[in-house]
Amino acid sequence: MHEFKRGSLTDPLPAAAADEHVTPLMHAGGARIERIVSHGQASPPGFWYDQDRDEWVLVVSGRGVLAFADGRRETLEPGDWICLPAGCRHRVEETHSPTVWLAVHLPRADT
Amino acid sequence: MHEFKRGSLTDPLPAAAADEHVTPLMHAGGARIERIVSHGQASPPGFWYDQDRDEWVLVVSGRGVLAFADGRRETLEPGDWICLPAGCRHRVEETHSPTVWLAVHLPRADT
Repeated sequence: MHEFKRGSLTDPLPAAAADEHVTPLMHAGGARIERIVSHGQASPPGFWYDQDRDEWVLVVSGRGVLAFADGRRETLEPGDWICLPAGCRHRVEETHSPTVWLAVHLPRADT
Repeated sequence: MHEFKRGSLTDPLPAAAADEHVTPLMHAGGARIERIVSHGQASPPGFWYDQDRDEWVLVVSGRGVLAFADGRRETLEPGDWICLPAGCRHRVEETHSPTVWLAVHLPRADT
């Protein structure tokens, strides 16, 4: 009981594959934490994420470019985070290989 | 509406001070994400964190040592994460200066 669990986001890294690697790390009360490893993947042309919950994303290593429905592009380097509120349409425009992301999916706001 | 917000965990870093720097980054639905910057701080002697919610912690840069009530010590380097379930008594034994932590406080489990 009350046992901790530990790991590393960057060691080892999975080998490059056709799809991104998504590793669930923890979840509780509607919140979910996962590691995503990209090897050059991008969202399919014309695809937009349009989520019903807030998401918080960090680039741990590598580099990723997000594009937004209003035309803006945001390049994220290691240490850079972005908060994507529910309904903020976005796509992954490009990723360096490898790029390690940390994604925190937040529960629906309780207010 | 649906506006994203971005920042960096590591640039700039606050100057060393007597206390750790805690910066709230995002919260929703009982979950809370924060950055903690330590400059050598440790928990007071004999103090134990004993939380009623799960916490997930990542060392982004630097190094931190956690101690547990059963005598174990865990050293966390950059990229290392640890999941501290509710009721897992722990303390910060030592920190490198500076150490950047990411802490995700999860909501109470809904099951």
